[in-house]
Amino acid sequence: MDDILRFTAAAVQLDAGSDTRLNLDKAESFIAEAAKAGAGLVVLPEVFLWRGPQAEEVAIAEEIPGPSTTRLCALTKRLGIHLVAGSILERSNDQERVYNTSLLIDPSGSVAARYRKIHLFDIDLEDSVSIRESDTRLAGTQVCSVDTALGKIALSVCYDLRFPELYRQSALSGAEIITIPAAFTATTGAAHWEVLLRARAVENLAYVIAANQIGTGTGGIVTYGNSMIVDPWGQPLAHAEDGETVIYGEIDRNHQRDLRRQLPCLSHARLT
Amino acid sequence: MDDILRFTAAAVQLDAGSDTRLNLDKAESFIAEAAKAGAGLVVLPEVFLWRGPQAEEVAIAEEIPGPSTTRLCALTKRLGIHLVAGSILERSNDQERVYNTSLLIDPSGSVAARYRKIHLFDIDLEDSVSIRESDTRLAGTQVCSVDTALGKIALSVCYDLRFPELYRQSALSGAEIITIPAAFTATTGAAHWEVLLRARAVENLAYVIAANQIGTGTGGIVTYGNSMIVDPWGQPLAHAEDGETVIYGEIDRNHQRDLRRQLPCLSHARLT
Repeated sequence: MDDILRFTAAAVQLDAGSDTRLNLDKAESFIAEAAKAGAGLVVLPEVFLWRGPQAEEVAIAEEIPGPSTTRLCALTKRLGIHLVAGSILERSNDQERVYNTSLLIDPSGSVAARYRKIHLFDIDLEDSVSIRESDTRLAGTQVCSVDTALGKIALSVCYDLRFPELYRQSALSGAEIITIPAAFTATTGAAHWEVLLRARAVENLAYVIAANQIGTGTGGIVTYGNSMIVDPWGQPLAHAEDGETVIYGEIDRNHQRDLRRQLPCLSHARLT
Repeated sequence: MDDILRFTAAAVQLDAGSDTRLNLDKAESFIAEAAKAGAGLVVLPEVFLWRGPQAEEVAIAEEIPGPSTTRLCALTKRLGIHLVAGSILERSNDQERVYNTSLLIDPSGSVAARYRKIHLFDIDLEDSVSIRESDTRLAGTQVCSVDTALGKIALSVCYDLRFPELYRQSALSGAEIITIPAAFTATTGAAHWEVLLRARAVENLAYVIAANQIGTGTGGIVTYGNSMIVDPWGQPLAHAEDGETVIYGEIDRNHQRDLRRQLPCLSHARLT
């Protein structure tokens, strides 16, 4: 595997609804746009494939691999890119619950890694967001990062962002790029999104690629947009405006290695 | 122990030099000022007692308890406050190295907790900060938080801020207030200080009280100032201007409990 030390990464910001075919068409169009612009890695948001009433989640969940994954693998292969397929609701053996699963698809068109969201979002904020994901979702248990030609890439989803230990496990095992597909809410996003993204970059000296939903999901949750790409020093490389869009950032792994040499805090960890 | 649910916390920002007596007089004056203003908890910066050439650290290190601690305990008792005595270089059995130790002194004038900095700052930033603390310092190994009438208070020092796992251990064992005495450098501070302080508050839903040095230490390191108090939602309650000063923030533990109930992410941790 040839190591690619400089490349462009893209995060796609979407306003997905409950029409899977429409969402997939739109996602594919943005992926193709990003590849045409030179992106070697494209990250889609959480639930880019379907965002609708919680009661319908079991019914619309897919096998992985399954029809949507197969389409995305074919596109990824044709474009010769790496794709983090944000998240897809994945059928499980539980009749009432599904996994919320992020995939890494490589340029051969293969699913190189699968991460099932570990931390379920069960919160009840006064006067704003109230949701119990655990009513219809199963939690994963496995931290996931994977070696690729673009470096070691860590997978995570949305609410995971609040749990630094997930990213520490990945970074301390060598992850260089952290991906965070999300449907982060407007309320919590305004307060916490950017500060947590930048902190995950800084403490792990990692690139962070965060693709968020925007607009109101049919589940009624208003999402925050503001997709971002952050460099390992914590500086934003790109920050999405409102609307469906793609943002780009230059990944420079030599620069990252240099920072990790100058400030070797990953090797100073004593409590992990 | 009566539980105090609302109180004022203070962080003292100092420009300490290599005259221990002068530093202690100054620290005591600021502590008394803060207590007079109603503070129930006062936090001093790292190495508030002495900041000088690294080669002199072993010679100036003190026993704990020792002369400076005894003075601070007497003052703390007289004022009826809790004091986090930032850090003091503590004599060890090693002839060439000392501990960098933060103390919590309670209103009875007793040392209620002692934390020896775990993560040593050995970095070599091109064109700016280059230092090897491990040449003259020993690392502690014990995470430290302690129950007080003001809530459970976690101790840490400066570079520890880059290691989220330290604060996770404390918060998941019940810490409500995180203290971070520091001599954070101007270069790294401008890039990372505020974002990391706010992230530690958000991810742990904790109050963060961060007392930093300002000015140039006689060791030649320019420090960043910008001492802060941050609430559990990540919002700064106070932010110091340049110069030696005291900042104040209102701690409201009922508000914090309410946030932790609405957004129970501490109980959602799965990887710690």
